[in-house]
Amino acid sequence: MYRNFRIVPQIIFGRGAFNQLGDVLKPRRVTEGGFVVFILDDVFTGTELERRLPMQGRDLLVPVDVTNEPKTRLIDDLVEKIRRYAPVNPDGVIGIGGGSTMDIAKAVSLMLTNPGSSADYQGWDLIEIPAVYHVGIPTLSGTGAEISRTCILTGPKKKLGINSDYTLFDQLILDPELINGVPKEQWFYTGMDCFIHNIESLAGCMLNSFSRAYAEKSLDLCREVFFDDHPESDEKLMMASCFGGMSIAYSQVGACHALSYGISYVLGVHHGIGCCIAMNVLDDIYPQGCEEFRQMMKRHDITLPRVVGEDISPAEMERMITTTLNLEPLWENCLGSDWRDKMPRDRVEAYFRRM
Amino acid sequence: MYRNFRIVPQIIFGRGAFNQLGDVLKPRRVTEGGFVVFILDDVFTGTELERRLPMQGRDLLVPVDVTNEPKTRLIDDLVEKIRRYAPVNPDGVIGIGGGSTMDIAKAVSLMLTNPGSSADYQGWDLIEIPAVYHVGIPTLSGTGAEISRTCILTGPKKKLGINSDYTLFDQLILDPELINGVPKEQWFYTGMDCFIHNIESLAGCMLNSFSRAYAEKSLDLCREVFFDDHPESDEKLMMASCFGGMSIAYSQVGACHALSYGISYVLGVHHGIGCCIAMNVLDDIYPQGCEEFRQMMKRHDITLPRVVGEDISPAEMERMITTTLNLEPLWENCLGSDWRDKMPRDRVEAYFRRM
Repeated sequence: MYRNFRIVPQIIFGRGAFNQLGDVLKPRRVTEGGFVVFILDDVFTGTELERRLPMQGRDLLVPVDVTNEPKTRLIDDLVEKIRRYAPVNPDGVIGIGGGSTMDIAKAVSLMLTNPGSSADYQGWDLIEIPAVYHVGIPTLSGTGAEISRTCILTGPKKKLGINSDYTLFDQLILDPELINGVPKEQWFYTGMDCFIHNIESLAGCMLNSFSRAYAEKSLDLCREVFFDDHPESDEKLMMASCFGGMSIAYSQVGACHALSYGISYVLGVHHGIGCCIAMNVLDDIYPQGCEEFRQMMKRHDITLPRVVGEDISPAEMERMITTTLNLEPLWENCLGSDWRDKMPRDRVEAYFRRM
Repeated sequence: MYRNFRIVPQIIFGRGAFNQLGDVLKPRRVTEGGFVVFILDDVFTGTELERRLPMQGRDLLVPVDVTNEPKTRLIDDLVEKIRRYAPVNPDGVIGIGGGSTMDIAKAVSLMLTNPGSSADYQGWDLIEIPAVYHVGIPTLSGTGAEISRTCILTGPKKKLGINSDYTLFDQLILDPELINGVPKEQWFYTGMDCFIHNIESLAGCMLNSFSRAYAEKSLDLCREVFFDDHPESDEKLMMASCFGGMSIAYSQVGACHALSYGISYVLGVHHGIGCCIAMNVLDDIYPQGCEEFRQMMKRHDITLPRVVGEDISPAEMERMITTTLNLEPLWENCLGSDWRDKMPRDRVEAYFRRM
């Protein structure tokens, strides 16, 4: 049995495509006196991008602070806020920002139609009611959040996505202009998330020819972007991110993502930099990928911080190990069905001690 | 203004995925006493594949003879046949076969809901009513028909597709097992259709980074398939076909396809071989592509027939030239906005005289 792979069904790609958002929304504004919710990374508050939002009537602007990665509590609060704002659901939820903002927009659109707390749905295919129409407009490339069927949330018990076919955006606007001007470190760490998706997908045992084609091309594009200073780097990184996302969506990530979740969940390390920190200690699993990753770091003069100090408590370490080993599909993809034998707790701890 | 590119929203990929067709249809069988139409290339009549169709109740099997490429008249006849068969529309139309069968299934699903003759809709975005749910299951790879927003039909006045967002399949089942056992010539000609899509997309002026990423990867996969005897050739060709289709859907084909339509429309030459015959005379426009194409021909011991003889009538030649030059977007993509100056009728005739 193969999965019936669901794909974002509409994409606009091109420099300046953001200007078409108003036209895209026009046929979706079906509720009389209705409104659209714009979820915007608050780094854009007061900027030209905010002024360009095609807001009208009772539309609601929701700036979000993504200093910390999104929590289920934040989602529940935003949904409550929107419900208090109007007695009907919005005609659309538009997410404009990086991976965290994409995830917030996806989660909010799901929780506007599904009862309970977003924490109830962290897992696989627990959502039963289609989401409010939602559009993704990335301003940062690499996470693949724009194309994936998940939205990663940190809940009271775990860091895990709401994985479902309804999570997928109904529409993407991919405007390479928007990813211009991202600070170098953030650009690099987020781009490496994509590079690592491809390394993990290609090395995994869940790989098929569909995932392989996407991952190979995404990897080629990453190399052009991070080694060649290509004139269309923004365009290429945007495509690389989508292709990497398509690849892992039909296969899986592996050890690097599993370890990064441990340090994210317990130490609050952001996803992109967390993946880089984990990749840097995984020579025994991804030897070529690690080497290439370090060449890219060197070329862009990136130095990784230490995040696991001597002062880490035994309880924290245990929680990091447990979080990481709970990600069973990732380990199975990476090491095969006997992964538990190959990845005992002390081996996981040894990786963490080097981060 | 960029086009809002619509994509087939659900794909199952993998060897043996055909077996999942029954499960895919289950939630779609919503009409009480309803039925599903299976449009099957009649080369499979009496074969194991026919027996594996998950038919039940009042389901209707429609074998189609694709010796000649589909005509608008054939579509209209099939639609009438289905209407006579039942007072309600089917719950689904399933196309199983090569590009022609895909196109028939797409056209029938559109014409079951839209009034008039299929010839009325040959053009761009003339369809206004969504089609009956339709599924594509290719048994031949290269045309990209499985992924495209068109279905090419030969009408009383022209060979032109019904291009619309509604034309796209709702579901694909990509089972590489099914393309096994295709006769070598057909495999080659159809595969070259894909190769040529990429050459024309990459050389065209409508290319963007989205189309480029798909075309480049598709070309890499074609090279693996046609030069390397790769163990996963069927898988790779299937992906190459989809990627090539995605590329031209967001850009355009060029001179080779335009010329091939001329010999197809007037002389009845099939699309795949027609593209090969046209490519073989286009060294001045696609020098590298032509050279690589001939290397592939040589490697697989393919000899192209002559199709334009001394005995062609002046009227036939005029019709071929007119048919070809009417494909304005293709020429514009290939030669730019001043293409009329660059491609006078005598230049087109000179190409045809060498075919």
